[in-house]
Amino acid sequence: MSRSAAVKMSGLLMRQLRGEFSFSPRGGLVQVCHWSSMASGTTKEEEKTHQPPHTLVGETGDKAKTKAIVSYWGVDPPKISNQDGTPWRWNCFRPWETYSADTSIDVKKHHLPTNFMDKFAYWTVQTLKYPTYLFFQRRHMCHAMLLETVAAVPGMVGGMLLHCKSLRRFEQSGGWIKALLEEAENERMHLMTFIELSNPKWYERALVFAVQGVFFNAYFLAYLASPKLAHRIVGYLEEEAVNSYTEFLIDIEKGEFENLPAPAIAIDYWRLPADSTLKDVVTVIRADEAHHRDLNHFASDIQCQGHELKEFAAPIGYH
Amino acid sequence: MSRSAAVKMSGLLMRQLRGEFSFSPRGGLVQVCHWSSMASGTTKEEEKTHQPPHTLVGETGDKAKTKAIVSYWGVDPPKISNQDGTPWRWNCFRPWETYSADTSIDVKKHHLPTNFMDKFAYWTVQTLKYPTYLFFQRRHMCHAMLLETVAAVPGMVGGMLLHCKSLRRFEQSGGWIKALLEEAENERMHLMTFIELSNPKWYERALVFAVQGVFFNAYFLAYLASPKLAHRIVGYLEEEAVNSYTEFLIDIEKGEFENLPAPAIAIDYWRLPADSTLKDVVTVIRADEAHHRDLNHFASDIQCQGHELKEFAAPIGYH
Repeated sequence: MSRSAAVKMSGLLMRQLRGEFSFSPRGGLVQVCHWSSMASGTTKEEEKTHQPPHTLVGETGDKAKTKAIVSYWGVDPPKISNQDGTPWRWNCFRPWETYSADTSIDVKKHHLPTNFMDKFAYWTVQTLKYPTYLFFQRRHMCHAMLLETVAAVPGMVGGMLLHCKSLRRFEQSGGWIKALLEEAENERMHLMTFIELSNPKWYERALVFAVQGVFFNAYFLAYLASPKLAHRIVGYLEEEAVNSYTEFLIDIEKGEFENLPAPAIAIDYWRLPADSTLKDVVTVIRADEAHHRDLNHFASDIQCQGHELKEFAAPIGYH
Repeated sequence: MSRSAAVKMSGLLMRQLRGEFSFSPRGGLVQVCHWSSMASGTTKEEEKTHQPPHTLVGETGDKAKTKAIVSYWGVDPPKISNQDGTPWRWNCFRPWETYSADTSIDVKKHHLPTNFMDKFAYWTVQTLKYPTYLFFQRRHMCHAMLLETVAAVPGMVGGMLLHCKSLRRFEQSGGWIKALLEEAENERMHLMTFIELSNPKWYERALVFAVQGVFFNAYFLAYLASPKLAHRIVGYLEEEAVNSYTEFLIDIEKGEFENLPAPAIAIDYWRLPADSTLKDVVTVIRADEAHHRDLNHFASDIQCQGHELKEFAAPIGYH
C-alpha cells in the first residue's frame, strides 16, 4: 500500500471514529442513517418510521421466570398449525419436514469387504462393537441414546467439509452437503426421541462428553485424509446400528423390554398413528439407519470408482 | 474386564474372523445372512430376492467420459419436475426450497454498539473493511464472490457447534441449528450464483484458500469462547455486506457495471421472472444479507440478556 493511501485510510478511520461519516468505497461520504442516542439501538428517525423494539417472551416451561427480551432485531417465527388448527409444537422441524419411513427397506444388507480399505473399516467397527456390547448388554435404551450421540457426528462433519470445499473450489456440491446434514439432523432427532423416554445418568453424560471429543476429531481427520474410508466406516457403523435395533425389537416382542407409548415428537416426526408404541418408533428408526447405511456405502463406492461425489446427484430426502 | 470375559470376547472375535457367525449381544449366534462370493457384494440369496447391482451414470457435462458405476447401494434421487413438466435442473435445492425474497426489508438498519463487546465486534469488522475496500475498489463481482466464500462459514460453524452441544447435553435446539445451517447454505447459493457470471482468477482462488483457513479457525474459536460476540460480529459483517451490495446496485444503475441477464440458478432459487437481470439478483441477495443481519443480532441479543438460544424459537425460513 502506498504512503498516500495509508495516510488517506488512517484519516478516514479517524473521522469515522469521531462519528462523522460511514466509509464509502467510492471515496465519498455516506450519511450515517442510524446514529442512536438510546441504549436500545433505536434512532429518532427510526422511532418515527419503524416499529418499537420487539418484545419476545421465552418459551421455556416456566414462563413466569423467563424474562421478556427487548430486541429491535427480534424476529418472530411464523405461526404454523397442524391440520386440525392446533399450534405446531416443534421448533426444530416443521410439518413439511415430517415423513413416513419406508420400513420395507432390507435390514439385512451387508457390504462385503473387498479390499484393504473395506477390511480396515469393517474391523475398526467390529473392534469397537465388542466392548460396546459388553458395556451395555441388554440396556437397549441407554445403548441407543449414547450411540445416537455418536451417530449424529459424521453427517455434520462430512457436510461441513464438503461445504468448505464447495466454497474454496467455487464448485457445485451435487446435493451431498444437504444429504449429509440431513443424515446428521435425522440422527439427532432419534436422540431427541429417546430423551423423551429416558434420562441419562451422570456417568453416561460424562461418557458422551469424552466420546464426542475423541470421535469428532478422529472422524474429522479421517474425512480429510480419506473421505471414501470415512464413508465406509459409517456404512459399517450403520449396519451395526441396524443390528442393535433388531435386537431391541426382539426384546420388546419377547416382553423383556417395556413397550412404552410413543412420545409425541416421534408421532409427529414420523407421522405415526396416535396410539403408536416404542416398537413402532424403533422400527422406523431402524429403517432410517438402513437408509444411512445405503447412503454412506454409496458415497464410498462412488469415490472408490475414482469419481467425485458431486458427479452423482445425492439421494436427498431418501427415507 | 474379568479374565473370563476377556477370554470369551477374544474367542468370539476369532470365530467371527473365521466367518462362522455374527456376534449377538444376547450371547447367541446370529446366522450370517449375507456372505458373498462375488466382488460386487451380492449373495446367491440376494440374486434371487433383490435387484441386480445398481448402475448409475455420472451427471458431469461430458457424459461420454463419465463411466457408469456399479453399486449395490446406488440410490437414485427422486425424479422432480418443474410445473411445466421439464425436469428440475438442480441437485442442491429443490422446488419447495425456493422462495421470493422480501425486498421491502430495511437495508439501512444498524445496531448501535452499546457495550464493550459490541464495540469490539464493530471495530473488528470496520478494521477489516478498509483493506478489503482498498483491494477490491469497484470490482464488485470479484468482491461479492470472495466475500460470499467468507460469509458462508459462520452459519456452518455455529450450526455445527450447536448440533454438538445439543447431542452432548441431550437437549433441544429451538431450531437454531437449522436456522444457522440455512444461513450458510443461503450464502453458498449466493456464491453458486456469482460463479455463473464470473470466473475467479488463480490469485483470487489462492486468496480464498488462505482466508478460509484463517477465518474458519478464528470464528470456531470465537464461537467456543463467546457465541454472543461471534453472532454480533456476523451481524456487523452482514451490515457491511448490505452496504457493499447497495454500492453494487448504484454502479449498475449508473451504467458503470454491466447489467447482465440473471443466471438460471438465480431465477429458479429466488423465483425471479425469466427476464430478470443482475440488478434483480443483487437486490434479492442484499435482502438475504439483511435477514442474516437481523438473525445474528437477534441471536446475540438473546444471549446478552442472559438467556440461551434454545429458549426462543429460531426464525427458520425467515426470508
